[in-house]
Amino acid sequence: MSIQAETADQRLRARARRVIPGGMFGHMRAEGLPEGYPQFFERGEGCHLWDVDGRRYVDFMCSWGPNILGHQHPRVTEAVQRQMAAGDCLNGPTERMVELAERLVGLIPHADWALFSKNGTDATTTCVTLTRAATGRRKIVAARGAYHGAVPWCTPYPLGVTAEDRAHLIEYVYNDVRSLQAAVETAGDDLAGVIVSAFRHDYGFDQELPNADFARQARALCDETGAALILDDVRAGFRLTLRGSWDLIGVQPDLSAWSKAIANGYALAAVTGAEHLRDAAARLFVTGSFWCGAVAMAAAIATLDELERIDGPGIMRDLGQRFRDGIAAQAAAAGVGVRQSGPPQMPAILFDDDADFAKGERFCIEALKRGVYLHPRHNMFLSAAHTPADIDFALEATRAAFAAVAKA
Amino acid sequence: MSIQAETADQRLRARARRVIPGGMFGHMRAEGLPEGYPQFFERGEGCHLWDVDGRRYVDFMCSWGPNILGHQHPRVTEAVQRQMAAGDCLNGPTERMVELAERLVGLIPHADWALFSKNGTDATTTCVTLTRAATGRRKIVAARGAYHGAVPWCTPYPLGVTAEDRAHLIEYVYNDVRSLQAAVETAGDDLAGVIVSAFRHDYGFDQELPNADFARQARALCDETGAALILDDVRAGFRLTLRGSWDLIGVQPDLSAWSKAIANGYALAAVTGAEHLRDAAARLFVTGSFWCGAVAMAAAIATLDELERIDGPGIMRDLGQRFRDGIAAQAAAAGVGVRQSGPPQMPAILFDDDADFAKGERFCIEALKRGVYLHPRHNMFLSAAHTPADIDFALEATRAAFAAVAKA
Repeated sequence: MSIQAETADQRLRARARRVIPGGMFGHMRAEGLPEGYPQFFERGEGCHLWDVDGRRYVDFMCSWGPNILGHQHPRVTEAVQRQMAAGDCLNGPTERMVELAERLVGLIPHADWALFSKNGTDATTTCVTLTRAATGRRKIVAARGAYHGAVPWCTPYPLGVTAEDRAHLIEYVYNDVRSLQAAVETAGDDLAGVIVSAFRHDYGFDQELPNADFARQARALCDETGAALILDDVRAGFRLTLRGSWDLIGVQPDLSAWSKAIANGYALAAVTGAEHLRDAAARLFVTGSFWCGAVAMAAAIATLDELERIDGPGIMRDLGQRFRDGIAAQAAAAGVGVRQSGPPQMPAILFDDDADFAKGERFCIEALKRGVYLHPRHNMFLSAAHTPADIDFALEATRAAFAAVAKA
Repeated sequence: MSIQAETADQRLRARARRVIPGGMFGHMRAEGLPEGYPQFFERGEGCHLWDVDGRRYVDFMCSWGPNILGHQHPRVTEAVQRQMAAGDCLNGPTERMVELAERLVGLIPHADWALFSKNGTDATTTCVTLTRAATGRRKIVAARGAYHGAVPWCTPYPLGVTAEDRAHLIEYVYNDVRSLQAAVETAGDDLAGVIVSAFRHDYGFDQELPNADFARQARALCDETGAALILDDVRAGFRLTLRGSWDLIGVQPDLSAWSKAIANGYALAAVTGAEHLRDAAARLFVTGSFWCGAVAMAAAIATLDELERIDGPGIMRDLGQRFRDGIAAQAAAAGVGVRQSGPPQMPAILFDDDADFAKGERFCIEALKRGVYLHPRHNMFLSAAHTPADIDFALEATRAAFAAVAKA
């Protein structure tokens, strides 16, 4: 026995190892993070999290995306409570489903209709199946290393996956027009769709915004071939703009997959589509036991209303820029080379000469000790609940963290 | 314009057709039901539903399964409200996840561990992927016509599905030992798993309970070959017993997929598994943005506690038997041939000489007019919120419905 008292997190991890394989599964498994990160949480309020040992963090992961307005947001909670008092999972949808579909069609330029589900993976899978149904073709062109979900056709860790699960995928390199053209040529007259992330946000790499020429070429290739341009906006959706992330570069997809931030943490996903895919969508059988749940839809309507009312994307951009500027100044002052990439609302911070992420991990651990939850490899997320004071609090922590990195 | 005033349901359907393909998607699409069924609902309480035109129904679909304790159940609501006030979707799980996994491992004889997700399809897909990961083999043996979800590898309406999506599926006939043996032989040394429904509940057919010899043979074939026996308990789970549906016939699976009733309507799914699959499960990457959501887990713990406290399966069995006995007596009195099948908790009622379901539809429409929501083709569901008085109310309606069928 250690003479040091166990923490609540350690006790829970020990209990979890007995009844959950490896103690935890999926992207929230803390074992991939440096020692000191909590696995279990107790509470969330605004942009703050408390772990099970009562430590408070200013949070820059936002539940890996969903928390966009802040935990316990009063307008979302009010809509949720009102809907819960009526009903959630009934024998069919409520009026909330129609209202939400109308809201999305009104907000998103390319959207003529919407379908709902529960996971981002549900939405991307529906997009792929739908364009195959619409075109009668099979090939899907997808960027190498891009994350589109965690089921056999797309998981980044293909254990238990058969060759057939990937038989009709052809890879290109994000932002590389020639590789996209080559992939489309390889697909030939069997091309069903081209799937693109809102921007390149591969785990452990610098992020890349889409360049306009690449985006226009992707659109043009789909137009020429009759394939669908599928925008995977699961991760970025509603943070950069409410209109769909490629609206910022003037390119509209045929289909978009949405989830994460759409309902401020309530489980919901959506596919929006263009008119020419409506008939195929009406013939598709996609469903789930909870997909008509009205509470998550009420939360989504309240979330979209509030994001629009306050210009949530603009707030997050300004907060993210304040953080980015502070980090840049601190890094320069400390003489530490960092690369900040991606849109300010979804920052990634990687260190120069840091192939094993040792610097990044040290940096994040020092910030964590000072009450700031960052991620050393994955992109992070701002919420509209962060304030300039929260950013400045975080920058106090990162100043000390840079000093520790410089010293090491 | 019709001179008859439109109903609220008709107005919502018209709005929905503009923004949702076909006006509605999936299994809750009312267009497959006879005219008169509502598409949109307003409220649920106990075993009662109200549609958007204010009509009240004693409900025998229970949200197609999830509603097992009744809408707005006070103990579930209390647990949900308590958890909502703390946090739902955070940067990792809360203690609720460990408690729920411990609860399932304690309840379910075959379960040594649990994983969580959101859809029944997530759970069945994880089972299939997991046994492929564990065995390094590919073939999955599944019953012809069985429903295991609505994604390409298993959807019953394979639009947009490629041949490769089904390349490693081999079919058998439920309850037919020889066909199962033949399928297993066809798979040879590439057999990864045998998937079975809790009982045969194919849409539009009489239901069949598993016969014990079939179940034992399935178990023995998996033991001989090292393949996993996967029980799809998504639809039946927690209604027949809390211990896993095949516990009733003394056969334990290696993996079970759960969803629907597990959290009384909150979106949750689970996979439970035996010890020998724990390591493979720990290596598998399965995840979703909302899979650690604590509110649905709090709801599940409260649901399981209450089902155990009141012997929910026993209550539903007795209520279902009361309904079944009443229906049988009424059918005999009316001189109408009906077949009642499946466990009393999940009844199906089909009519003799009714290939086009015209009698069944007339029967259901007459019941619907009298405030009782039945289904003419799909199995139905009892909840523990039904009372003998609700069953007797329903039997008043079905008496009139039988008279109408007999007259036609």
